[in-house]
Amino acid sequence: MHKDHRSECVINLTVEIFGDQWSLLVIRDIIFMNRRHFRELLTKSVEGIASNILANRLQRLVQQGIIVKSQDASHKQKAIYSLTESGIELLPLLMEIVAWGHKCLPAPGLRGLARVLEEGGPKLRARFMSELRETHLPKSAAKKKVRSRMKSTRISAVQKLRAAYGTKLARR
Amino acid sequence: MHKDHRSECVINLTVEIFGDQWSLLVIRDIIFMNRRHFRELLTKSVEGIASNILANRLQRLVQQGIIVKSQDASHKQKAIYSLTESGIELLPLLMEIVAWGHKCLPAPGLRGLARVLEEGGPKLRARFMSELRETHLPKSAAKKKVRSRMKSTRISAVQKLRAAYGTKLARR
Repeated sequence: MHKDHRSECVINLTVEIFGDQWSLLVIRDIIFMNRRHFRELLTKSVEGIASNILANRLQRLVQQGIIVKSQDASHKQKAIYSLTESGIELLPLLMEIVAWGHKCLPAPGLRGLARVLEEGGPKLRARFMSELRETHLPKSAAKKKVRSRMKSTRISAVQKLRAAYGTKLARR
Repeated sequence: MHKDHRSECVINLTVEIFGDQWSLLVIRDIIFMNRRHFRELLTKSVEGIASNILANRLQRLVQQGIIVKSQDASHKQKAIYSLTESGIELLPLLMEIVAWGHKCLPAPGLRGLARVLEEGGPKLRARFMSELRETHLPKSAAKKKVRSRMKSTRISAVQKLRAAYGTKLARR
């Protein structure tokens, strides 16, 4: 067992990474809202994350291999955050959280997102994940390409989810 | 929006409940190890939870409606903790955490549990959940009874999971 961990249990190891009040919300904003820069993660945060907490959580998520920080190709001065494959694989976990909350918590404000996720099922989830791979992973690592024909004829899974998510959040 | 919450987003509301270093581990021990009393949750904790933290987390989980505290029928002086339906519904979430950790974290010590969960699939999960309902919910609320014939001919899903979980944890 690694000395830095309380136990080797995968549930414990995952709780050690995400067991705080902010990390999963930062991941949520990167995945669903495509917020990739410090400034927009800070100023658009619905929950009002503090600047020092955001900086700390981003740094920790980079250390854990959930996201990577690099130079934005279009703004040389700006850092851009991208999900790694481990970060993209958090989508099913976030969806399970949404499913649990939808079933067990009184939160009528977000029925929209839960409904879109439910209706779309595993297919929408898979498409969303391959679109995330296209957007976040280095070109060579994104093995499953989103076919461009599919893109032009159907609404992107990303757009569909972000629309539902944005609408419902704006309503509160 | 309720004043006590940072936002109405279900992911945020769930993080507000479980976003700490201990709550999900307490739930894990109740679900997988059937630890129902304060003393065993304290002394058998692999991660070494402190007494005051355990007391605080149990109290919060009761307030959130995830568990209930009642008098143990066999030991009148002892309090016993039981899962509510909302608590039992956390099983798919815990399994998603196991799946993510198994895929993205270097934790070879728990392959056993992940394998049992994977092999069993949705069927094993459903059986485990109905067994949890039998054990934790008041008789009238546990609608789906586990058929006794099934119980006698097959190993219980609970036993199977606990065996795998215990073995692997003991190995570290």
